[in-house]
Amino acid sequence: MSVLRFCKFPVNPESMARESIMAASSPFRTPSQREADRVAKRDAVLRAAVRMFNERGFHATSLDDVATSLGISKRTIYHYLANKDQVLLECITIGLQQLLQAAEMARQEAGTGRDRLIKFLRRYAEINMGEFGRCVIRTGEEVLAQESMPRYRALKREIDTALRGMLSAAVADGSIAPVDIKMAAFTLAGALNWPARWHEQAGPMSASDIAASMVDILMKGLEP
Amino acid sequence: MSVLRFCKFPVNPESMARESIMAASSPFRTPSQREADRVAKRDAVLRAAVRMFNERGFHATSLDDVATSLGISKRTIYHYLANKDQVLLECITIGLQQLLQAAEMARQEAGTGRDRLIKFLRRYAEINMGEFGRCVIRTGEEVLAQESMPRYRALKREIDTALRGMLSAAVADGSIAPVDIKMAAFTLAGALNWPARWHEQAGPMSASDIAASMVDILMKGLEP
Repeated sequence: MSVLRFCKFPVNPESMARESIMAASSPFRTPSQREADRVAKRDAVLRAAVRMFNERGFHATSLDDVATSLGISKRTIYHYLANKDQVLLECITIGLQQLLQAAEMARQEAGTGRDRLIKFLRRYAEINMGEFGRCVIRTGEEVLAQESMPRYRALKREIDTALRGMLSAAVADGSIAPVDIKMAAFTLAGALNWPARWHEQAGPMSASDIAASMVDILMKGLEP
Repeated sequence: MSVLRFCKFPVNPESMARESIMAASSPFRTPSQREADRVAKRDAVLRAAVRMFNERGFHATSLDDVATSLGISKRTIYHYLANKDQVLLECITIGLQQLLQAAEMARQEAGTGRDRLIKFLRRYAEINMGEFGRCVIRTGEEVLAQESMPRYRALKREIDTALRGMLSAAVADGSIAPVDIKMAAFTLAGALNWPARWHEQAGPMSASDIAASMVDILMKGLEP
């Protein structure tokens, strides 16, 4: 995630130049340094939390554990995030945004609909083997707070729509076989979600090799 | 599940005949009636519990809720099951045994390796849309008690072995294409596990139609 994406202050090159002179000559941080620092700390909290959620489960993780792993107090976490439910929602949002971004990037690729679909599916599987993607897949709806549901469901719907759109485009340009789009989307997504449950980061195959192999099986099928 | 499978008393036709005469003439239940009653009550507890686990999640379900839904007290549940962790393990065991039984039945079918594989995969998906199968898929390892792990892992391993065996047999008799057996097993299982998360029992398509459609997509692939 780019720090600037979360920067609330207008940034222009001139003021940045002035700031860097100020920073060199002053022990006080500039507003943009303070904002960058805030984003970096919030990110560090989310990274520590997502690892624990994936390892122990959401219910067995306390914000005290997360704070301890970072050498800070729970009160410090509350500067950045309201509560454990919000920490989970932010982790899941990052994972879902990575998936959406993968769809966006795949759509901009040259080639046939099939080429773009394969690009997206591989990246989709890889993300699900990363910490934030794993958290998306391992967290059932029933774990989320009621107030988290609208954002969660909207992002999930966007990803499903993106996948169905890519399947339809590939059927339309004849680069894949005609198929029930909804069932195909569920089948592909399910197959490529599941590594979030079994993939071990220290395992013998890389995430990218696993993704390529699974997508190859899904594209070719099993018929002789 | 057959009640007799869990009956700890030796049953022979003669004693059953004697018992039914006794039962007709006596207000006291025979040992086999008492055992059948015990099994039926234990089953009812597991069925009520699995529905709640699937709906609310394991952590949000208390044995008090389960007892209330059956009009009994929590103490009554403890006649049949030691604690909530054991209730979960029993629910998951039933689901895993249904999957194993599906493999066993498919292996006895006539036809090619491909025919047997398809039978198993369809049944596998259908089970994952039932309450006990859903519980297997929706429950991450991190939720299980430490003492539940050996049984859980042994059953999971048996199912994975059964699926890989069926894939190998179908490759060997030439009825499916040569494929990386391990990756194919993970890909198929993942795709057919996922309906446990999205399938709604009141939805427009039956579990068996969904299963058939997904297996068809997996067998044919997407190539034109």
